[in-house]
Amino acid sequence: MTQHDHEPAAVSRRRLLGSVGAAGAGGLALGAVGGAAAHAAAQGEGGEPALATVGSTRVPFHGVHQPGITTPLQAYGHLVAFDLAHGAGRKEAAALLRRWSATARELMEGSTSVHGTDVARDAGPCSLTVTFGFGRGFFSRTGLKDRLPVQLAPLPEFSADALDQDRSGGDLWVQIGANDGLVAFAALRALQRQASGAARLRWHMSGFNRTPGATDRPRTVRNLMGQIDGTNNPKPSEKSFDRRIFVPHPAPSGSEEWMAGGSYAVLRRIRMLLDDWEKQPTHEQEKVIGRHKSDGSPLTGGGEHTDPKLSKRTADGSPVIAADAHIRVAAPESNDGAAMLRRSFSYHDGFREDGAPDAGLLFVAWQADPLRGFVPVQRKLDRGDALSRFIRHEASGLFAVPGGARRGEYVGQRLLES
Amino acid sequence: MTQHDHEPAAVSRRRLLGSVGAAGAGGLALGAVGGAAAHAAAQGEGGEPALATVGSTRVPFHGVHQPGITTPLQAYGHLVAFDLAHGAGRKEAAALLRRWSATARELMEGSTSVHGTDVARDAGPCSLTVTFGFGRGFFSRTGLKDRLPVQLAPLPEFSADALDQDRSGGDLWVQIGANDGLVAFAALRALQRQASGAARLRWHMSGFNRTPGATDRPRTVRNLMGQIDGTNNPKPSEKSFDRRIFVPHPAPSGSEEWMAGGSYAVLRRIRMLLDDWEKQPTHEQEKVIGRHKSDGSPLTGGGEHTDPKLSKRTADGSPVIAADAHIRVAAPESNDGAAMLRRSFSYHDGFREDGAPDAGLLFVAWQADPLRGFVPVQRKLDRGDALSRFIRHEASGLFAVPGGARRGEYVGQRLLES
Repeated sequence: MTQHDHEPAAVSRRRLLGSVGAAGAGGLALGAVGGAAAHAAAQGEGGEPALATVGSTRVPFHGVHQPGITTPLQAYGHLVAFDLAHGAGRKEAAALLRRWSATARELMEGSTSVHGTDVARDAGPCSLTVTFGFGRGFFSRTGLKDRLPVQLAPLPEFSADALDQDRSGGDLWVQIGANDGLVAFAALRALQRQASGAARLRWHMSGFNRTPGATDRPRTVRNLMGQIDGTNNPKPSEKSFDRRIFVPHPAPSGSEEWMAGGSYAVLRRIRMLLDDWEKQPTHEQEKVIGRHKSDGSPLTGGGEHTDPKLSKRTADGSPVIAADAHIRVAAPESNDGAAMLRRSFSYHDGFREDGAPDAGLLFVAWQADPLRGFVPVQRKLDRGDALSRFIRHEASGLFAVPGGARRGEYVGQRLLES
Repeated sequence: MTQHDHEPAAVSRRRLLGSVGAAGAGGLALGAVGGAAAHAAAQGEGGEPALATVGSTRVPFHGVHQPGITTPLQAYGHLVAFDLAHGAGRKEAAALLRRWSATARELMEGSTSVHGTDVARDAGPCSLTVTFGFGRGFFSRTGLKDRLPVQLAPLPEFSADALDQDRSGGDLWVQIGANDGLVAFAALRALQRQASGAARLRWHMSGFNRTPGATDRPRTVRNLMGQIDGTNNPKPSEKSFDRRIFVPHPAPSGSEEWMAGGSYAVLRRIRMLLDDWEKQPTHEQEKVIGRHKSDGSPLTGGGEHTDPKLSKRTADGSPVIAADAHIRVAAPESNDGAAMLRRSFSYHDGFREDGAPDAGLLFVAWQADPLRGFVPVQRKLDRGDALSRFIRHEASGLFAVPGGARRGEYVGQRLLES
């Protein structure tokens, strides 16, 4: 089993301890309603009850994996792609990754000594995570074409795609998450400034999720269709989790060391046709998904985490979960066990000319190999998913996310300096 | 003294009580790190310590004033303007305000029974507030031109304005705030759907602020320049607060009953030229503002809430707080005591073509009369504020915000039905 060291740690900075500590003997109980870590504790998922607040929770930068993959979803997210600047090559890319890694580490520790991050002052680390990935272009621009992983082969075209190339792809990808909007913004701006000269911003998307403490249903996320999302995600406690989500580490002989403990991220900006969706009565929406809207339970009964009985039929012989229901088509059983860890943000970029919201899901899926994760599932969904009528895939990205940096190392160093 | 009944109440819904109640005797202490209300309690500003979490905090809809004016700033905000539809008049406007008020009340209570608000399911009310205002056009469209308040006279043009009319003005204005992004989105969508036929969306802006619990400095807000903002705001505990911020209530004889307890909101979308700003060393930024960046204390010494000594001079005779420092030019002492309650959200709508962030402040100022609040202060700032070099006013709005609805009443009823 991998050490999942990016679960948030309950590390309080001195001045946060000042106020939290004042609660004295109530301290342990306090954790029970604090933040993400506290929720996990209340659930018995995170070990000991944590003396944490939304602000003081810190996620470590160094580790076997990069942060932001198994870290609980934060309330604010930025996804941003950069292209290496004209004339910038391997040397400039290495220097950039070194700067970026140092800054990410400092900010994730709650430091605001990096120039121009005063916005984050007064706040704790707020579960900030920064995750770096490389697109196909990164390898050609840095003269490392021979090191390009086969897993970065372009995604197939899907019939329902309507992709905006200006918001797709990119040499470098950065995922930022935090439970405070100002902390997330400070990280985004600091990284953008430090890119100056070496890389320029290609596209930027921002999203959000439930605020820790807003619900007493920990880790249950609803998307903008109102549907509970991610129920069937593989769980770190499952034996197959590491194999499906992460590239093996230590690297087996003959394989690239820099990707050991890494993962491949597929990004899809999926706009939801909410005006159409909301016109459907609840039972029609439930038929499309295959789950009850209220609690996420499958139409075949049980609770949110009960396995759907895909073969169950009604008295008249029709399947209870329809042939084109989203959960049937996407189910690992329907896709040779293909699985990915979905960790998405909702987005809402205002309204379109016709008054419809420009809103949906910044879908992010993590897997050891997209050909055994996203690709086969999306092939199925593309052809037969009842949900397709209500969504549009408008942007796409595929990035190699190196293993976590060791102490004294920067992300990607084992690729760029060997 | 007015009853400030829109301070958040610590009302837990049954299922939230389920988890919070489990903490038993630790309950009162729990409030001390919970949410906005809890912070107020820790400060002794809000009376008794509250048994509240970010999710369970509820702000009452009914009251002398509308909610969202003295309510502590929430983490997520939407500002949205509607124009009455062609052919819609007083009757349609009244029906719309009746629908909107009912929905706002239900959602603020944490109900998700309104169609299409499943997005907010599982979450508590999360300090949701909905505030309604009327622009000049509202009065002509509803045949109520003779009831147009003199306070809605168009704002003067300021020399530095670069206003986008498509994102300015509007017949109706709605301000939504909540400590959860999905709860805020649910409210926005519900109100938009209910406007259908009667009004159409004119513009929409969304913003954010610090997440409750992200900092142990309650009510201290930083803007995207990294500066502590709102320090010199009038405080409800001050004797002059009501007179400056709210229209008198009950209505003095001869004055309009519907505005009793109401207020006037000035909105300015202020883009910050962050690339230029961040190039300035900290001491230059502090000279522009007149305060220390770290803690918001005036350059003349003390803490954040120490009064600046505007007449203090250095040994060589120059003023310690420069003649064009933002806090000097904006100070009530420099403006015949003019004061407004600033309650702004930061915004970040991605990046412009040149890579500069489209980001800044959704400045919202509340006052009993804009001619004794925003207008004289902005006149001064427009001419002599050192900060002007780093900001652009890009949109503007002025709205009459009626007094709060009584039980059984909707917002604006005393205008529309008398």
